[in-house]
Amino acid sequence: MILIAHHDPAGQDSDAAFEDAHVYVQLEAVYTFAVQDGLGECDDGDVVCAQKLFHILDLRRYSAFVHSHDGKPMSLDAPAQKPQEKLAAALAPDMARVNDMIRQRMASEHAPRIPEVTAHLIDAGGKRLRPMLTLAAARMCGYDGPYHIHLAATVEFIHTATLLHDDVVDESAQRRGRPTANLLWDNTSSVLVGDYLFARSFQLMVEPGSLRVLDILANAAATIAEGEVLQLTAAQDLATTEETYLKVVRGKTAALFSAATEVGGVIAGVDEAHIKALYDYGDALGIAFQMVDDVIDYGDPEVTGKNAGDDFRERKLTLPVIRALAQATPEERAFWERTIAKGKQHDGDLDQVFAILARTGALEAVTQEALGWAAQAKEALAILPEHPIRDMLGDLADYVVARIS
Amino acid sequence: MILIAHHDPAGQDSDAAFEDAHVYVQLEAVYTFAVQDGLGECDDGDVVCAQKLFHILDLRRYSAFVHSHDGKPMSLDAPAQKPQEKLAAALAPDMARVNDMIRQRMASEHAPRIPEVTAHLIDAGGKRLRPMLTLAAARMCGYDGPYHIHLAATVEFIHTATLLHDDVVDESAQRRGRPTANLLWDNTSSVLVGDYLFARSFQLMVEPGSLRVLDILANAAATIAEGEVLQLTAAQDLATTEETYLKVVRGKTAALFSAATEVGGVIAGVDEAHIKALYDYGDALGIAFQMVDDVIDYGDPEVTGKNAGDDFRERKLTLPVIRALAQATPEERAFWERTIAKGKQHDGDLDQVFAILARTGALEAVTQEALGWAAQAKEALAILPEHPIRDMLGDLADYVVARIS
Repeated sequence: MILIAHHDPAGQDSDAAFEDAHVYVQLEAVYTFAVQDGLGECDDGDVVCAQKLFHILDLRRYSAFVHSHDGKPMSLDAPAQKPQEKLAAALAPDMARVNDMIRQRMASEHAPRIPEVTAHLIDAGGKRLRPMLTLAAARMCGYDGPYHIHLAATVEFIHTATLLHDDVVDESAQRRGRPTANLLWDNTSSVLVGDYLFARSFQLMVEPGSLRVLDILANAAATIAEGEVLQLTAAQDLATTEETYLKVVRGKTAALFSAATEVGGVIAGVDEAHIKALYDYGDALGIAFQMVDDVIDYGDPEVTGKNAGDDFRERKLTLPVIRALAQATPEERAFWERTIAKGKQHDGDLDQVFAILARTGALEAVTQEALGWAAQAKEALAILPEHPIRDMLGDLADYVVARIS
Repeated sequence: MILIAHHDPAGQDSDAAFEDAHVYVQLEAVYTFAVQDGLGECDDGDVVCAQKLFHILDLRRYSAFVHSHDGKPMSLDAPAQKPQEKLAAALAPDMARVNDMIRQRMASEHAPRIPEVTAHLIDAGGKRLRPMLTLAAARMCGYDGPYHIHLAATVEFIHTATLLHDDVVDESAQRRGRPTANLLWDNTSSVLVGDYLFARSFQLMVEPGSLRVLDILANAAATIAEGEVLQLTAAQDLATTEETYLKVVRGKTAALFSAATEVGGVIAGVDEAHIKALYDYGDALGIAFQMVDDVIDYGDPEVTGKNAGDDFRERKLTLPVIRALAQATPEERAFWERTIAKGKQHDGDLDQVFAILARTGALEAVTQEALGWAAQAKEALAILPEHPIRDMLGDLADYVVARIS
């Protein structure tokens, strides 16, 4: 997508000057032109680009001159266009209540260290994607009780606890090339505050009084933990199959996505077919989301805004490598043996990885796979009654993969 | 208590020789003469003494000659006399089912590392004190359904998960003078397998289908996590009050004890007064238990079988130090400032600690306090209907403190 902005390079604030200058800025995907306060989207590459654009060119002053690529004028103050932000706008009053509940429940009268650590993570403004899925599912299914708020907060607490423990896991292995959140505190705080958030999530999820909801979330918690351990033992093992990879992905990501959507349907009391559809949507969306993340890990940092090669350094067998291994030449197999199985990595190895991935077309293949899961997610929605939120969830599935395709 | 055994010092196996010799062996507290296989009691100082006794004198050959201190003959093959072992004997069929369930539920089809790590902890044979409390409460209240087994396993899983995470916390701080269990694996495994056990405990506790049970266990989990964080922040702080200490103790120990007994009453469906009594018993027992542990940490290793001074090295403000601080001379206060607040510890400091504790009578004072809590635990039992298990629970409260008094 190309964004064309008329700009005055000399800084002269006159119409004449504007007509002399055109700035062509190509962004990978521009869904957002306005960075909304409080939505916490700053960790997305495209939004960071948009911010820089505002900063350097101060386009807001000339917003009337900004056009979208199809030539129509477009205001920088227009409502957010990214599917997640559409959802966030549609669910804004609910999400405000979720945020209140998160702040309230992460407080600890006895141990002030707890809100310090959690505030660092929670106020940093994640996307709140997971709680939004619960709110969306409940609202789309016509729920009008109070408990979708509790369950959305539950889901965010579980996610945050997992992040805290992941930091410890990654740092203790000392394989990550960039600072982790727990550098600000210590392993001890990360482990214990993570445990506290798990316990809190557990208190929250009991409140709606639904044993079925508890069953779903308990099973998700077990799948998450099992997936994390499986990832640990599958790392460094070149024999890791796509089936094992999928189990890891379900544990890391999809289990919480599918639980988030499923419990929304369950508290709304919809029928079994609809509950299954919500589960299937969350599961496929989560798998697509994680596959895209695994592709981005081998992407161009300029485009992705993330360090490349973390998974390689951590010797994780993600799908791009599994696919590349399947068609490796003897030299390439020896390369993977040395770098992943034995962990003997040298300068320049990452360039070699990029070359192998390019030769084998592994990143494109995984992207196709992710597109397939996104399509499955959309298909799952088909049996649900028409609803504006249903359409946004469909767009979200597309968007998740559009980041790289 | 004095155990008198007739013994033949010359090794002559004749009645005449026996009558010549008396061996007076004073043990601190002899509740057990027979060390039962599989009960895993070998970590208790007195039982270790008893074992040594058997080994050196081979008393079993002359068991007819062993008398208790009141002069009655006593067989070495008599049933175990320690309250915990009486409970274990009374609850043996239930406990066997709990052990089966633990083994079954800690298995992971996908991640074999999980049972490896948990087996190390669970098969090592802890006392199983906490699950026994649940079984005891349920049976004493006349429960005859299947779910006390699930809840007992739940409680043991929560306890084991906490131990795994404590190991990480202690090792990452590198203050512990002895090897921790997670030396066998790594921090990563301890964190993740701990999370897995939490998740599993959560699945187990959902099965009885009681929201009240879930509420109790969720609150206990939050209290445990909060107590751990509070302990972390209270460490090194000489201003720590007895009130804060008590909160830490409830988090570390008493919350799981009281939840263990309370849920036993809840699934048995007894009235509120009895449920409260069970809670109060568990709470007071847990506090007494932890206070005794904190005294033992400053005890003679020859007697306790444990390293002395771990809490001092970890700069934990436990009750003995809080009491000693309350009556510290200016020199002593400077000593605590240096060693605990600033963490500058030298060789010989621990001897200085022992001297201060002796001068101030702090250990005796804390022992008295623990005796008070044990008495409260017994009082709480008074309103419960008469039952052999009730008496064993009463004896257990005495025994917990008898270890040091």
